[in-house]
Amino acid sequence: MARTCLAVVLAAGDATRMKSSKSKVLHTVGNLPLIAHVTHAAAAAGVDKVALVVGRDAEAVTKAASNEVAIPVSAVEQTERKGTGHAVLMARDIIAEGFDDVVVLYGDAPLIDPESLKAAITERGKGADVVVLGFRAADPTGYGRLIERDGALVAIREHKEATVEERAIDFCNGGIITFSGGEAISLLEAIGNDNAKGEFYLTDIVEIARARGLKCVAIEAPEADMMGCNTRPELADIEQVWQARARHAAMMSGVSMIDPGSVFLSYDTEFGTDVTIEPSVWFGPGVTVGAGATIHAFSHLEGAVVGEGATIGPFARLRPGTELAERAKVGNFCEIKKARVGVGAKVNHLTYIGDAVIGAGANIGAGTITCNYDGLNKHLTEIGEGSFIGSNSSLVAPVKIGNGAYVGSGSVVTNDVPEDALAIARARQENKPGRAHVLRERIAAFKAHKNSTKN
Amino acid sequence: MARTCLAVVLAAGDATRMKSSKSKVLHTVGNLPLIAHVTHAAAAAGVDKVALVVGRDAEAVTKAASNEVAIPVSAVEQTERKGTGHAVLMARDIIAEGFDDVVVLYGDAPLIDPESLKAAITERGKGADVVVLGFRAADPTGYGRLIERDGALVAIREHKEATVEERAIDFCNGGIITFSGGEAISLLEAIGNDNAKGEFYLTDIVEIARARGLKCVAIEAPEADMMGCNTRPELADIEQVWQARARHAAMMSGVSMIDPGSVFLSYDTEFGTDVTIEPSVWFGPGVTVGAGATIHAFSHLEGAVVGEGATIGPFARLRPGTELAERAKVGNFCEIKKARVGVGAKVNHLTYIGDAVIGAGANIGAGTITCNYDGLNKHLTEIGEGSFIGSNSSLVAPVKIGNGAYVGSGSVVTNDVPEDALAIARARQENKPGRAHVLRERIAAFKAHKNSTKN
Amino acid sequence: MARTCLAVVLAAGDATRMKSSKSKVLHTVGNLPLIAHVTHAAAAAGVDKVALVVGRDAEAVTKAASNEVAIPVSAVEQTERKGTGHAVLMARDIIAEGFDDVVVLYGDAPLIDPESLKAAITERGKGADVVVLGFRAADPTGYGRLIERDGALVAIREHKEATVEERAIDFCNGGIITFSGGEAISLLEAIGNDNAKGEFYLTDIVEIARARGLKCVAIEAPEADMMGCNTRPELADIEQVWQARARHAAMMSGVSMIDPGSVFLSYDTEFGTDVTIEPSVWFGPGVTVGAGATIHAFSHLEGAVVGEGATIGPFARLRPGTELAERAKVGNFCEIKKARVGVGAKVNHLTYIGDAVIGAGANIGAGTITCNYDGLNKHLTEIGEGSFIGSNSSLVAPVKIGNGAYVGSGSVVTNDVPEDALAIARARQENKPGRAHVLRERIAAFKAHKNSTKN
Repeated sequence: MARTCLAVVLAAGDATRMKSSKSKVLHTVGNLPLIAHVTHAAAAAGVDKVALVVGRDAEAVTKAASNEVAIPVSAVEQTERKGTGHAVLMARDIIAEGFDDVVVLYGDAPLIDPESLKAAITERGKGADVVVLGFRAADPTGYGRLIERDGALVAIREHKEATVEERAIDFCNGGIITFSGGEAISLLEAIGNDNAKGEFYLTDIVEIARARGLKCVAIEAPEADMMGCNTRPELADIEQVWQARARHAAMMSGVSMIDPGSVFLSYDTEFGTDVTIEPSVWFGPGVTVGAGATIHAFSHLEGAVVGEGATIGPFARLRPGTELAERAKVGNFCEIKKARVGVGAKVNHLTYIGDAVIGAGANIGAGTITCNYDGLNKHLTEIGEGSFIGSNSSLVAPVKIGNGAYVGSGSVVTNDVPEDALAIARARQENKPGRAHVLRERIAAFKAHKNSTKN
Repeated sequence: MARTCLAVVLAAGDATRMKSSKSKVLHTVGNLPLIAHVTHAAAAAGVDKVALVVGRDAEAVTKAASNEVAIPVSAVEQTERKGTGHAVLMARDIIAEGFDDVVVLYGDAPLIDPESLKAAITERGKGADVVVLGFRAADPTGYGRLIERDGALVAIREHKEATVEERAIDFCNGGIITFSGGEAISLLEAIGNDNAKGEFYLTDIVEIARARGLKCVAIEAPEADMMGCNTRPELADIEQVWQARARHAAMMSGVSMIDPGSVFLSYDTEFGTDVTIEPSVWFGPGVTVGAGATIHAFSHLEGAVVGEGATIGPFARLRPGTELAERAKVGNFCEIKKARVGVGAKVNHLTYIGDAVIGAGANIGAGTITCNYDGLNKHLTEIGEGSFIGSNSSLVAPVKIGNGAYVGSGSVVTNDVPEDALAIARARQENKPGRAHVLRERIAAFKAHKNSTKN
Repeated sequence: MARTCLAVVLAAGDATRMKSSKSKVLHTVGNLPLIAHVTHAAAAAGVDKVALVVGRDAEAVTKAASNEVAIPVSAVEQTERKGTGHAVLMARDIIAEGFDDVVVLYGDAPLIDPESLKAAITERGKGADVVVLGFRAADPTGYGRLIERDGALVAIREHKEATVEERAIDFCNGGIITFSGGEAISLLEAIGNDNAKGEFYLTDIVEIARARGLKCVAIEAPEADMMGCNTRPELADIEQVWQARARHAAMMSGVSMIDPGSVFLSYDTEFGTDVTIEPSVWFGPGVTVGAGATIHAFSHLEGAVVGEGATIGPFARLRPGTELAERAKVGNFCEIKKARVGVGAKVNHLTYIGDAVIGAGANIGAGTITCNYDGLNKHLTEIGEGSFIGSNSSLVAPVKIGNGAYVGSGSVVTNDVPEDALAIARARQENKPGRAHVLRERIAAFKAHKNSTKN
């Protein structure tokens, strides 16, 4: 039978160094709150339930932690700040429900790899009572050292209490500790606060377990897995690592990025193969890109489906509700919002398409605007297959342009245009010979007058 | 009584390796000339006066050095190039005015931290006659080494003259030297030019002072403080360090940057707390951003005030004279120049607003253009509170749209619109049934004809 | 008499790890296919002929390899995959044509510096029979080691077959081997396949030559020269190195880049001196930028000539066929395609210019669109010197605006405008007092109705 596991996630931190009006675990990485990264990782590692220890912004944190997570998340409140050992005990009632394993995670350490968690749980299954996740630090100064003897972990030694020999150890405490669910409450209750700060430290659990003859081990994981966030520069560093992982995975699956470092992905971005991405592209949440599509530089996508072989940008913005069919083209300085663009249709220059349906093969001229908003309501524009919208046209919604229709450049279209009809809505041109000359003199006189009155 | 200090700033360099039509100290970092960084740092460190040794582009360099600097800057010209010792002596008359301390700075080393300068001056106050600022180099090859004995600096040894033992020293000369104002001229005059290049080296001052029984010390500062600029790649490296410092300071004060490395700040950029900045944003000089504002990716700001809670971009350009009130929105492909945008007003798509005042809560439709220029003069557009400008409208300035007025989409507005009036200035639409078909045939015939005449 | 040299370029790889629908050597770096970088480098090093060993996408690879290369490229097909030794022998007939030197290059290692190749050929001229290009690796694990004795190369030892002492060697095989043309076939035929994989390894050539009393040497080149590409992340790494080299060369020649890392160059980008480039600029193929020009941030150029002192962007796109004369200006959200823009002419805001000629000093107002496309044909727009095109105008091509003419804002110009004439093509404005109020009530009623029917 499979083991059962509870993750206790500490997410009550105040984070004054973030200088933020909200809890730090609500800040995002890859457009997902830190806390959600942690609960997603727990679920992916096979954890059965999350006990979420919350403080500041309790409601919002709980909501973010539970969103799109397949396992139950129960929040418990922490009102006093007495150290990690005390914080974990806030989840006492949930721990008491009975789990084979309890793992302690941190809401501000979102890079934990589910594989690392699985490794810790596996180690528990092999008989270790307490499993500490550690990492090899290039410069271990300041970290707690993992003191091992004969393959067993004997203590976690704080840097300032470490001997010279112990300080030479580069194997450091990552904070993530897995222990026996049966022993959990007893071990946690044994933690004391007889130290300089008067706090209850979870790390004391190792020496307590050892004293009881229990077996403790440390296993290694990448340092990045345990990066925590206390300041905004640290948040940016975490984002950097997360993006590097996400970009590498995308490239290995067949996406070309000319400058991966300038392509920003969201937690849920999806790509087909042979997608090409030029530098400086932003993928907000909810984007799917089909095989063979090309995203040119300086594009900004969010909540959009890009069809196979479609071409986007440069300088394109796709907003939520955009659906581009195969081989559609959206070019420079174009914005698409809540609109379907048909197979091979083209929206190439300086255009705003909002609340619209564009048929296959339609050509939308430069500078076209769908006038979808009346100040209160949004209205629909329907543009038929194979139609041609002349440049600089305004389509005042609700309005329907029939299949194969043709709208003359510069028209303001307020009424439906039947199939195959030509619509023109513009004034006749009048040339006034020599008048540019007169106009110029008048303009120059105005300028001269303005200058003279300045003195 | 406070000590008095003179900074002699060497800024006469030719900089042929920059391959530039102007003096290298006029090149900018953080949109401020290199030379101004140096004088700003001197003033911030408590220096009382700057003696600026100029050569190429003397006038422009002096102007840049003096701009926005609270202390007097006196330029002296250097006509011959005979080494740093000789260059400092160009300021002989100013040195002779009498200062407790003289510090030599370099116009092409803009990253000097005022704190490092203060530390050197403090050292002077504690009794050292000559204080050399040094740095620990990862690879000291090529640098002059600081040879110390019993806490005193005994010599600055050029790399090629150093012994094997001396080359093992990683403490290197940063070039910035502080010395007694009273001894200054006598020490500088003692520098000889009996060397391979026949130049007067300021670094000789250490051994000269030692021979006179004066006390010399070296103190350490970050290597970056002393980075100098001789080529454009070096200029780019200095920009990188400067930006990294500026971004870190902004983030620590409560600004979130998803990709700090792609956000470019100017020397005077100011932020409130909880500002969020997406990747790829450019802050030119003169930008202030209020608390809680969001700057989306691909935005370019200069000379603009962004109100609290305002939203900018993506793809927005704010030019000098832009003032956005609280919660104003400027969206994609919008340019604002010399305009005030009222509380909560929206300029969301493909719009040009120049020389305008927009009232609170106004909604400017997509593709709106203020026609502010007649070829010689700029005219004002006034848009009232709560008004609604239909998409693709042209507002021909000078023109005034009253409060609560409504402009129909695609209108060319040449006359004022009264409060609460509806203005329409567009032609009536005409549909010609079946004519798209005819048109298409004509177009195809034209193409066929063109192709046939090509052969 | 000059030596003759044949380059055998291996380009038949399958590259399944690229997960690509095309051969990996067709992927680009600096907008040039990998394979073309290799043939360009060979030609630059003085190689006389290329024998191209092709497999997948043979035709396209041959075409890419030959494009813009001054030396003949002969393709030979490789149908079986039996190792590098076997692959080189595919070129047996070409080798038999008789060359002093044969050098083996790799289609997926595009960073080879012609200087490194020349050094190898020079070494051949000095009497070495086999010359191996090696590099010093920071971490040599996994690479073949170059085993030297008394200045001679005695073997290339695979990592797994190396002794502990040999593994300490950091001088590694880069794969590029130059050998005597006369001995080439005999040496290659002597390579056996008595090894674990049953493949013919080119590296065996060293021990074979040694056994025959021939002289083998290894010479050092930068590690980057020999970077190979097997995955898309590796392709991105190679692009990074290539761009860094190209940017450095541009900066040393007098170009300022505020953030070199965000400026992307093509293999043929050319700059005059004192060009300034803001962050985030993309240079596609075929761009030449004149002295003193400024390219603001977020610009995308391809196939364009930018005149001296011209100003581009921010947010400008220049497409193929753009020619900007001296001091021309193209501003934000503007696209130019197949058009000449005259001296000092301005296209500053939200404009599309396609298939056009703009005279010197003309001013194109914000939001102007050249309506150049009828759905099948492109038509020409001619705009005269010193003319003024009012904002938001549509110029329906073919059309000609005379010198000094003036087009009123918001006009749709369908007929030619004579010199110095004023053209107006817009409807008269009508104000309907109080109607905005009525309209607003109607809109609110619609919204209320919509909401009520939702329930």
